Amino acid sequence: MRIEDLPTPALLVEAAALDHNIDVMAAARPGASLRPHVKAFKSTALARYVADRGGHRSFCCATLKEMEGMARAGLGDDLLLANETLDATRLAALVSSGAARITVAVDSPETVDVAAAAHAEVLVDVDVGLPRCGCPPDQAGPLADLARSAGLTVRGVMGYEGHLVGNPDRAARADGVAGSMVLLQAAHTDVGGGLSSAGGTGTYDLHDWADEVQAGSYLLMDTHYAQLGLPFRQALTVLSTVVSRSPKGWAVADAGLKSFGMDHGNPTLPGYKVFFCSDEHTTFMPGEDGSLPPVGSKVRFLPAHVDPTVALHEWLHVVDGDQVVESWPVDLRNW
Amino acid sequence: MRIEDLPTPALLVEAAALDHNIDVMAAARPGASLRPHVKAFKSTALARYVADRGGHRSFCCATLKEMEGMARAGLGDDLLLANETLDATRLAALVSSGAARITVAVDSPETVDVAAAAHAEVLVDVDVGLPRCGCPPDQAGPLADLARSAGLTVRGVMGYEGHLVGNPDRAARADGVAGSMVLLQAAHTDVGGGLSSAGGTGTYDLHDWADEVQAGSYLLMDTHYAQLGLPFRQALTVLSTVVSRSPKGWAVADAGLKSFGMDHGNPTLPGYKVFFCSDEHTTFMPGEDGSLPPVGSKVRFLPAHVDPTVALHEWLHVVDGDQVVESWPVDLRNW
Repeated sequence: MRIEDLPTPALLVEAAALDHNIDVMAAARPGASLRPHVKAFKSTALARYVADRGGHRSFCCATLKEMEGMARAGLGDDLLLANETLDATRLAALVSSGAARITVAVDSPETVDVAAAAHAEVLVDVDVGLPRCGCPPDQAGPLADLARSAGLTVRGVMGYEGHLVGNPDRAARADGVAGSMVLLQAAHTDVGGGLSSAGGTGTYDLHDWADEVQAGSYLLMDTHYAQLGLPFRQALTVLSTVVSRSPKGWAVADAGLKSFGMDHGNPTLPGYKVFFCSDEHTTFMPGEDGSLPPVGSKVRFLPAHVDPTVALHEWLHVVDGDQVVESWPVDLRNW
Repeated sequence: MRIEDLPTPALLVEAAALDHNIDVMAAARPGASLRPHVKAFKSTALARYVADRGGHRSFCCATLKEMEGMARAGLGDDLLLANETLDATRLAALVSSGAARITVAVDSPETVDVAAAAHAEVLVDVDVGLPRCGCPPDQAGPLADLARSAGLTVRGVMGYEGHLVGNPDRAARADGVAGSMVLLQAAHTDVGGGLSSAGGTGTYDLHDWADEVQAGSYLLMDTHYAQLGLPFRQALTVLSTVVSRSPKGWAVADAGLKSFGMDHGNPTLPGYKVFFCSDEHTTFMPGEDGSLPPVGSKVRFLPAHVDPTVALHEWLHVVDGDQVVESWPVDLRNW
């Protein structure tokens, strides 16, 4: 199928850029030293491609739906729910299915109780500076003791320095990671277990500290991460049709804020200036050459934030030149 | 089923508030003087409920997927695609199915060609001040002539004053609508046809001008529209579970920016202060009483923008007290 024949809006993945990104990351963090984060692409087909080409067999997930889907797809060698859950029923069903090795983050007695009820393995989630989940570092040891007393296997610690991964100053990122990982290492000493898990795409090469890095955005990338000067290419675009053009000097394409994650701002349209997004429209102005594309032509937007953009679409169309070479369902959306 | 037993995050619709909103609007704009906008709720079950209780039988849509779904659901008495489309293939299939009366907005010779190829009826879309689609008012007449010469039925004009609908100053909204509708009426005189279609939730009662108002957000509402002092109640919330609590003074719930349309900003959590949203988390601080809910408890967020929030979910759970009385699929998502 030709790209030209896809209904719009449609999510495109440039095959060569995806391969480049997988290869660069696999060279820097081979095998189990990377735990690709499924939340960034929500597709078992893409996960399988990453496993095959990149050689990574352990994955992390943000939702039980992602965990359940990965297990069902036969990608369950080592699945980490890198979030806390209070849903003992679903977690227990997942563990007892036997389809996967299941580990879950815990940061409180309540989440330890849930893991114990479900017989999941655990990582103790430690607050290393991001104001979100994770127990204080000095409570990690007691929480591990509590988990072991409940019969759980404590595999180690997790600490996500999400407040640092988007800082465009590499030296500042490196300093911040060092500070966060001092906290995580101290907690690891108290907790025990063989594994420390941390990081993301923005800090993937600043982690001599952690045994494994949790990164997902590197595969498809977005304009926000592109500011960091990382060696990954923008593989993801949203194909859109120009549906209107005004003599007042703008054009309108049929992809809007229901096609783009908007929390990092507007998408970018190379060669033009994006004015604003409505539900199903983006209005844009001419770039430096003063021209606008004709009604009926196709344009490709670069999303500002990859994860919530992918979550809005049903398909990832893998493209090479003007051809769609494969279409992968985004089968891990919703909860 | 009890609300307590729903997996989270989950979209809730307060039955009493929905009924109130339908009744208030139907009293102000009965029958065909309102064309409910499907883009705001993307559910044929909710559309059918609005048709039955509110007595409106004509609907407008933002996408071909919405049009196709409404036709298939037997809600096709009078469906308007209130956007331009260049997809003659899908539009023609929809018209020739015979399942619905199909009208489409046109604002260019190219979109007239598509309507002609599909044998759809048309409304001429006029630019009344919003920098998006719509032809200049003085080109509406010639475009209608072109459409008629191609054998099309021209039903009249459409002009959406979307740049005004969110202005919290009612007098300014009224002035703006008057100015926009002078433009639309002049175009209507040139175009002919019996129908003028305009407006939205924010201007529903400022339209002696238009034959019909296109409003959808009034059904479920959001915190952005709530600032306008309209007589509609907030019916929509996102149910979420508290998954973590920090001794540093915040709590974290399991609904994040993949659960909320973020283009109008963060959701609101009554009684607390929302700090920030991550993909699957919202971190929030205590309100005036200094308390935070315990881990495992449920909270309900108010979304800032209804349309893109609904588009992120698979189900609308209609609730009354602590019971889920019905669950409606959001079956018109995607494209």
